[in-house]
Amino acid sequence: MPNSRKHNPKNSQYLRNANRAAIIRRLATNGMATRADLADSLHLTKMAISTIVSEMLETNLLMECGIINEKAPQASGSNSGRKPTALTIPDCRLNAIGLFIMRYQVTGIAIDIKGNCFFLESVPIPENTDNDRFAEIMIDLTDKIIRENRHIEFTGIGIASIGPVDIYHQMILNPPNFRNIKDIAIGRMIRDHFKLPVFLDNDMNAGALAESLYGSAKGMTDIVYLGLGSGVGVGVITGGHMLHGNGGYAGEMGHMSIQMDGPLCSCGRRGCLELYTNTFTLLTNAGMDTLDALIEAAAQDPMPPLVQSSIDRYMSAVLSGLTTIANTFDPEIIIIGDDGARMAPFFVEKLEREMNDQMFQRETRKISLTVSSFHKNAPLVGAGALVFQRIFNGDMPV
Amino acid sequence: MPNSRKHNPKNSQYLRNANRAAIIRRLATNGMATRADLADSLHLTKMAISTIVSEMLETNLLMECGIINEKAPQASGSNSGRKPTALTIPDCRLNAIGLFIMRYQVTGIAIDIKGNCFFLESVPIPENTDNDRFAEIMIDLTDKIIRENRHIEFTGIGIASIGPVDIYHQMILNPPNFRNIKDIAIGRMIRDHFKLPVFLDNDMNAGALAESLYGSAKGMTDIVYLGLGSGVGVGVITGGHMLHGNGGYAGEMGHMSIQMDGPLCSCGRRGCLELYTNTFTLLTNAGMDTLDALIEAAAQDPMPPLVQSSIDRYMSAVLSGLTTIANTFDPEIIIIGDDGARMAPFFVEKLEREMNDQMFQRETRKISLTVSSFHKNAPLVGAGALVFQRIFNGDMPV
Repeated sequence: MPNSRKHNPKNSQYLRNANRAAIIRRLATNGMATRADLADSLHLTKMAISTIVSEMLETNLLMECGIINEKAPQASGSNSGRKPTALTIPDCRLNAIGLFIMRYQVTGIAIDIKGNCFFLESVPIPENTDNDRFAEIMIDLTDKIIRENRHIEFTGIGIASIGPVDIYHQMILNPPNFRNIKDIAIGRMIRDHFKLPVFLDNDMNAGALAESLYGSAKGMTDIVYLGLGSGVGVGVITGGHMLHGNGGYAGEMGHMSIQMDGPLCSCGRRGCLELYTNTFTLLTNAGMDTLDALIEAAAQDPMPPLVQSSIDRYMSAVLSGLTTIANTFDPEIIIIGDDGARMAPFFVEKLEREMNDQMFQRETRKISLTVSSFHKNAPLVGAGALVFQRIFNGDMPV
Repeated sequence: MPNSRKHNPKNSQYLRNANRAAIIRRLATNGMATRADLADSLHLTKMAISTIVSEMLETNLLMECGIINEKAPQASGSNSGRKPTALTIPDCRLNAIGLFIMRYQVTGIAIDIKGNCFFLESVPIPENTDNDRFAEIMIDLTDKIIRENRHIEFTGIGIASIGPVDIYHQMILNPPNFRNIKDIAIGRMIRDHFKLPVFLDNDMNAGALAESLYGSAKGMTDIVYLGLGSGVGVGVITGGHMLHGNGGYAGEMGHMSIQMDGPLCSCGRRGCLELYTNTFTLLTNAGMDTLDALIEAAAQDPMPPLVQSSIDRYMSAVLSGLTTIANTFDPEIIIIGDDGARMAPFFVEKLEREMNDQMFQRETRKISLTVSSFHKNAPLVGAGALVFQRIFNGDMPV
């Protein structure tokens, strides 16, 4: 059963956790606040907030960090009341390890609940790596992060992986061209070894989460993260909830057909978006070996004809995908990640304009398009955020 | 601001409402239950449930309706404890009016929270009807429902309308070919006239809601309702939440392009799903005037060639749409409504089989495909359910 459907008993313990979680979320993702700010945004009385805050100050979950002169003129005029004190979560008070599994490497991060990253390391996944060897690589990397941050307490470990994954059994299933790794219960292995809570999701969902908590979509409730790389997919947050679907396989929009009679895709369908918008096809059609070379060539004026035509085909297909995403999800923002995050502003602006011109109900809405604030690393930050999300939701009381 | 994002203060009043709402939901959509059943499904103590239930019995929100012999052998052996009493919501205790606005007619319904419909009437929307005349038609129909059900108290009015609608301002915007009606704040008009809470959503979302509460998808949290009629769209419930998007325009999957270089759609894109799967095109290609005639012809063996080829083209496009829906939302079930609900079982089974063969991650999942349990009336039942949903969510305390 998906975590999001877990039915919490609605008793006073639930209330206490929910309110603490809301305070932590507010302070972690939105900066310092006074007790009055918190009362306002949580719709609770100042009295209620004061009680909860005192308790949290005692256990150092919060700290007071200065005086805010909200209404400077009046405040200086009357010295009667106490000046409001700003509250914050101490740096490195609540921390997670994030692990981002890509096709040929794993990157690990140490990150605090405010989104401060304080350790980062990548290790390659050598050819012929099998399940056992892969588990060792993952354990070694995690171990190193813990060893090199001895003074830090970690609340949990989040794993973002290329798909398909089974999020409910925390397994990586059968990603194509993924060395010799298949059907591995990596979540359980890491949990058993480190005795910490482990959460796993696919890279696209983790990317969306990172953007919504710490990135370009901070504070927004309806967002789509579109990963354009060797594979293509989306992570979606709608009405503040992550789109997972019944089995956790939602978001495979790389395998929406944009051309019914198009070429055959490895998935068995014809004309899938991914066929037209994967990085390898973009490079091959342009006669280029690397993305760096392509980006350099694309900056020339005029572009080499082969580069121009490859980019044109790529852009048409991306536009078709984006417009369908706009019509399907009506998000506030679409964020392009993975290799696509390297797209020059000129192309992003063109896509944003044309999507807004072509989408349904264009008279009364506007959707922003941007590249990821984390470049290719949104899923890495999101891996850590998988842990913090449980804290923010009250599923993991602190 | 969307209702679903409203931030309830988490205090004891909230708890009381949430628990009462959960009891009502359980009994309205899942039949009678004992206090022990309720304690179980709400994860509360029997003591807590008993207190809430007593209060609800006093105000006749609940009634006791018989003895359940849960464990017959033991029960007959020992007469020591009280036998468990089944609880239910009295018929017609909580009622709504539902109004379903189609292109050429409006249908009204009176429905109780258990899904019992006890009044139904349709009125045509004559040619040249403008906003003022349309408001009169809506008010007259609502008035008639109230007059003819004098003994009944109505909690609210739900409106399901062809789109596009602005759900936050309860307006119908500019549906194509919708007489002379445009940009009408019908929700406010009905609310001001009848002094009852009014909720408005588009017909696809209402259809999905009806199926999830009272229809084929009862108890499921991830469902898609696909309306195939003169227009095409989806209503989606994912993780138990309705997909609305930022402005309420989500679900316009009739305007996903399934053929980038296909014919021009009225929306401005090329190759939209709706171009291939609207009922008018299906009939025209088959050389038929009515759906009845087509259905009759399709039952012949062999089918007339023109009918066969039109149905083949229709089925291919529907299949393409369905497979993308499966890959996008990973629902537990997809329910076909509107004209599509008249599809013969043979065609539904074929589509279900082929979608399951073509979708991503087909090795580890299975998605059911079925036609609406309400035939063309899912949005009508859903219109009433728009009111009950507020009660179930605790947004409208009773």
